[in-house]
Amino acid sequence: MLKAIVLGGSRGIGKAISNSLKSIEIDVLTTSKKDVDTSNLSSVKKFVNSHNQTDILILNTGGPEPKPFSTITESDWEKYHNQLFLGFCIILQKIKINENGYIFLISSNMIKEPNAKLIISSAYRAAFAEVFKVLSKEYAQKNISCINIAPGPINTDRTKELIDNIEEFEKTLPMKRLGEPEEIGSFVKAIVENKIKYLSGVTINFDGANSNYVF
Amino acid sequence: MLKAIVLGGSRGIGKAISNSLKSIEIDVLTTSKKDVDTSNLSSVKKFVNSHNQTDILILNTGGPEPKPFSTITESDWEKYHNQLFLGFCIILQKIKINENGYIFLISSNMIKEPNAKLIISSAYRAAFAEVFKVLSKEYAQKNISCINIAPGPINTDRTKELIDNIEEFEKTLPMKRLGEPEEIGSFVKAIVENKIKYLSGVTINFDGANSNYVF
Amino acid sequence: MLKAIVLGGSRGIGKAISNSLKSIEIDVLTTSKKDVDTSNLSSVKKFVNSHNQTDILILNTGGPEPKPFSTITESDWEKYHNQLFLGFCIILQKIKINENGYIFLISSNMIKEPNAKLIISSAYRAAFAEVFKVLSKEYAQKNISCINIAPGPINTDRTKELIDNIEEFEKTLPMKRLGEPEEIGSFVKAIVENKIKYLSGVTINFDGANSNYVF
Amino acid sequence: MLKAIVLGGSRGIGKAISNSLKSIEIDVLTTSKKDVDTSNLSSVKKFVNSHNQTDILILNTGGPEPKPFSTITESDWEKYHNQLFLGFCIILQKIKINENGYIFLISSNMIKEPNAKLIISSAYRAAFAEVFKVLSKEYAQKNISCINIAPGPINTDRTKELIDNIEEFEKTLPMKRLGEPEEIGSFVKAIVENKIKYLSGVTINFDGANSNYVF
Repeated sequence: MLKAIVLGGSRGIGKAISNSLKSIEIDVLTTSKKDVDTSNLSSVKKFVNSHNQTDILILNTGGPEPKPFSTITESDWEKYHNQLFLGFCIILQKIKINENGYIFLISSNMIKEPNAKLIISSAYRAAFAEVFKVLSKEYAQKNISCINIAPGPINTDRTKELIDNIEEFEKTLPMKRLGEPEEIGSFVKAIVENKIKYLSGVTINFDGANSNYVF
Repeated sequence: MLKAIVLGGSRGIGKAISNSLKSIEIDVLTTSKKDVDTSNLSSVKKFVNSHNQTDILILNTGGPEPKPFSTITESDWEKYHNQLFLGFCIILQKIKINENGYIFLISSNMIKEPNAKLIISSAYRAAFAEVFKVLSKEYAQKNISCINIAPGPINTDRTKELIDNIEEFEKTLPMKRLGEPEEIGSFVKAIVENKIKYLSGVTINFDGANSNYVF
Repeated sequence: MLKAIVLGGSRGIGKAISNSLKSIEIDVLTTSKKDVDTSNLSSVKKFVNSHNQTDILILNTGGPEPKPFSTITESDWEKYHNQLFLGFCIILQKIKINENGYIFLISSNMIKEPNAKLIISSAYRAAFAEVFKVLSKEYAQKNISCINIAPGPINTDRTKELIDNIEEFEKTLPMKRLGEPEEIGSFVKAIVENKIKYLSGVTINFDGANSNYVF
Repeated sequence: MLKAIVLGGSRGIGKAISNSLKSIEIDVLTTSKKDVDTSNLSSVKKFVNSHNQTDILILNTGGPEPKPFSTITESDWEKYHNQLFLGFCIILQKIKINENGYIFLISSNMIKEPNAKLIISSAYRAAFAEVFKVLSKEYAQKNISCINIAPGPINTDRTKELIDNIEEFEKTLPMKRLGEPEEIGSFVKAIVENKIKYLSGVTINFDGANSNYVF
């Protein structure tokens, strides 16, 4: 039975991925912030000590509160450097992905079109996208696929916190609605279930035609 | 029963997509060059006259022979302008995609990293990618998803024609193999089968971690 | 004395480049649509017969009227295929650029972030950007630099035709103003004057921080 | 008299920029690692205390030694997080750029096409490119231009350290040579000298047609 580890699996997109993987009889370890907090490197190291191999890894975590650049403090930078970048690096250094496995990164479409309010998120998620791209070529040698899913506005608690009037906001979107976490869950499940391996080293905007950059 | 039209469905990637859609009980019209030749606008117009609506459309066609820029003739440009660009534009102008439908474009990862030998293909496929991106926002209003799949080296007759020594070539690839057409077929099927709609307006390299651009 | 050919040099950006090159004692041939009309291949062929070498080439031409996709006719596509793509290809096949020369392409920032109203322009300018990128590597062998300048909203007659209320529009721009053609003219002049050669194979948005894509 | 601060100005690209700005009678403060070490936040804070405004700012620093991902330590990450990202953020928070000023960032073409050996550099330079892009829109309101120059292989001491056989390497490059630091110096000077302001929010590869991504 294939084994999966889902980070940030207690709600939102992580939870949806966890549920959809369970539906195809994968042995899913769903973690919440209590189990492993990627903003806390001690927590990360403790976690990887007891969980050092898997077939499927879902790198997923929440993002920072909106904050204008001028008000971001050194400790803000440090915290999210850990949470969005360094924690994931340590995890990839320490958790062995089995041959023919998968790593899914849940990032944001803001790495291509950065947002002033979420500048911390754009910066560190982009940094990790670089690492993930480079590593996809190494993992490929063991037939491990690395897929960076870059969601746009998804119907999660976090989106509701970030946006005042969701209904008004939805009218501005090409599909007139937020994406559902289950769509991303189904997508991940479908890749795994169909043993699609050649999809790797790729950043996939998942944003209902909302972004403007051509590629 | 959902209806699909697959262009260039007699071999390679088109055939694999056709087969995988049939496996989920979709009514698939698989066309070959005899049915509709996108390099010939009369053929295109005749085709769209008798097939003017569908739920799922697969825009797929072969590419040109490798040719250095200095030797490309006006008639080469015209032919592939029709085949890779204008034929598809007419099809999108004339075939109605039903609500909740899908359009998959099979392009090439060479639109992001163009290749000197296949410069015609890079140019016109990139041109159509622009059109497709713009239209994805309009189609979104009818909940139609537009997905541009940009394959790298896939195990098709065409790849075998383009590359002298496939075995040597495969050693240079991150996954040490070509992609299989069936992986793309499964991918398309999985999107449709799982009713994933929020994946739209996106270009998805499908190239086994072969490309170098970060996104 | 270095020789330059400026296409579309009778007004706007082309005129500004022409003027700035003249100011550094370059022998500039400024052409208008009467001299060479890139939408008319006969006109292009006639022109390249009598002008078959230069040190500096400015590939510049106007764009199409705004038109929604559904209303674009086959003859619209053909006309702008010539004007924005094929005419330039023939010119590059026939005009010899002298060693240590320069080719500047004036395209549009809409090749990265396409615009629904100017879809023809986005498509064919992107197609030519692919050709130009590929050729930059060949021209490099003769120390010829290929620079794609992709302007945003510039203070030209064309912009005034496209936009109803310029003053209102300017308030939406990061710099609260349109760019001046002379800024692009000075930029081209500065590259040539300072013999900057290693800047090649690059697309340079020139849009006053207006675009949103990160790179 | 305009004032400039050049970071990392004691050698290579920084030195060339410093020299070229001096040649147009700008009051240049050229700093070396002794004056301000961006890998050391105390050093950065001390520096910005005594230098808190300028017209022109050159954000420039060396990069890390090549290191495979698996061997990178937490202290490596922390050091270069400071040097390539956080130090620059603090500088932008604390140094006021005067109206009509310029900020030039010297990054690397590896932010678009990351390199396995220099993965730290790709990651943190990309992170800062996101910040710089976002801020370019804010600085635009004060007519300050933000220009990200992304060099490829330049003839500096650092390149000689990174590459074993420079002569062999040069043969693989489109221009058959490294770029000269003076070309970048002249480029920066030319922008300032010609008061080109509308070039902002842009990443400019400066790599002799070496990169492969189309834009």
